[in-house]
Amino acid sequence: MKNTTQNPKQAAGERAAKLVKNNMIVGLGTGSTTAYAIKELGRRVADGLDILGVPTSYQSAFLATENGIPLTTLDEHPVLDIDIDGADQVANFIAIKGGGAAHTREKIVAESAKKFVVVIDDSKMADVLSHPVPLEVIPAARKLVEKNVAKLGGKTQVRMGVNKDGPVISDNGNFIMDADFGKIDDPVSLSKELSYCTGIVEHGIFTNVDMVYIGKKDGTVKIISLRNL
Amino acid sequence: MKNTTQNPKQAAGERAAKLVKNNMIVGLGTGSTTAYAIKELGRRVADGLDILGVPTSYQSAFLATENGIPLTTLDEHPVLDIDIDGADQVANFIAIKGGGAAHTREKIVAESAKKFVVVIDDSKMADVLSHPVPLEVIPAARKLVEKNVAKLGGKTQVRMGVNKDGPVISDNGNFIMDADFGKIDDPVSLSKELSYCTGIVEHGIFTNVDMVYIGKKDGTVKIISLRNL
Repeated sequence: MKNTTQNPKQAAGERAAKLVKNNMIVGLGTGSTTAYAIKELGRRVADGLDILGVPTSYQSAFLATENGIPLTTLDEHPVLDIDIDGADQVANFIAIKGGGAAHTREKIVAESAKKFVVVIDDSKMADVLSHPVPLEVIPAARKLVEKNVAKLGGKTQVRMGVNKDGPVISDNGNFIMDADFGKIDDPVSLSKELSYCTGIVEHGIFTNVDMVYIGKKDGTVKIISLRNL
Repeated sequence: MKNTTQNPKQAAGERAAKLVKNNMIVGLGTGSTTAYAIKELGRRVADGLDILGVPTSYQSAFLATENGIPLTTLDEHPVLDIDIDGADQVANFIAIKGGGAAHTREKIVAESAKKFVVVIDDSKMADVLSHPVPLEVIPAARKLVEKNVAKLGGKTQVRMGVNKDGPVISDNGNFIMDADFGKIDDPVSLSKELSYCTGIVEHGIFTNVDMVYIGKKDGTVKIISLRNL
C-alpha cells in the first residue's frame, strides 16, 4: 500500500495504528517509530476513537498525554488487546529491544497483550540477529553480569548517559549494559540463559512477536504475521 | 562443639564467623542469624582482624558500620572470599531466601563469593523445600507475575508492609511477592522457570550453597558441606 509519506518509520507506525479499534486497551511502545503510531492514535481519539493506553515508559506516557490519549495501568487492565512497539532489530519474529532503555516495561506490557505488533523501518530487518542485547542490570551486579555474560560469549559495555554524567539510569533506577554476542544463532536459548543470570532485571530479546510492520523508503509497508490473528 | 550460648541462631552465626581469616573480603548477609556473625566479626576486627565487608542490604551495612567492620563494594572487589548469610529454609544445599526482602542483593553477593555459607537454626532445615518463594517484582508486573506464577503452580501474595502502609518496597524500589508452591520437588527447574518470568527481578531460590551451619537448641552447631572447600 502506497502511503503519502516517504518516511519509513512514519509509514509503519501510522499503518499499524489502523489495527486499533474502538474500546481497545492498547500498549504504547517507546521510541521514534512508535511515536508515529501514538500521534496517529491521538488524531483518531480526537475524531472519537474510544481507547485506553498503557505506556511502556515516561516517554510514551508523556507523548500519549500530549496527544490526548487517556491512560490506564496494568493493575486496572491486566490484559491488553494489542501492544504496538518498535525494535532495534528483528529476525524470524524475534526482536531485540532496549535501545531506549525501556525494554523491561516494554516486555511486561508486550507479554500482557493478546497481540504484540512491532513497527520498524526496513533497516532493522535481519536474517540473523546480531544487534547488541540491552540488559537492565541492578547496579551492584555490574561486575558479576560482565563475568557471567562473558561466559555466554558476550562482551558488555555499560551504556553511558548523554545530558547526564556517568551511566544511563533506566526508568526503574538501574543500569543498562549492552552485550555484544556477534551473530546470535539461537536467540531463544540465549534468552533463557540471560534470564537466569543473577542481577539482570530483564534483557532485550523478545520472543513473542506476532506481527511486524516494516516501513520502506518508498512509503510502502510490508506486513508479516506469525499466525492468523 | 559445645557453645556457651543456648541460642541456636547465635551459635550458628558466631561459629561460621570463625571461617573468616585475615585479609578476606566477606559478604555480609541480612537477617537475625547473620547479625550474630556480623557482631562476632566486629569483635574480631576490634582485636585486629583485617577484613573488608560487602553488605547485602541497608540492614547489614548499618550493622557492620555500628560494629566497626570497614566496608567495600563489588565494584572494588568483584570476587569475595566468603559470603555468610541466613535462609528461610534449606534442603539438599538449596536455600529459600528473601524473608527480609533482600534476596536480590543477597544473590548477587552470594554468586560473587568463592564460598557461600548459610547460617540457620535447625527449624529451617527440611527434607523437601516448601517455604513460599519470595519474588522481587517490578511493580507494573504484579498482575503478569501473578498469572505466570499460577501457570507454574504457585499462589502469590504481595507482601504488605508493617510500619509502612501498602506493600513492602525492597531496597531496590520493587515489590515482594511470596509465591506458595507447596512442596517443591524440583527446585532447580523451578528456579529457571521463575527466572524466565518477565517482571521478576530475582527469586529467592539459591542453588549455590556450599556449606550450612545449623545451630541447635543445646548450643551445638552441625556443619554440612557440599564439597571439600
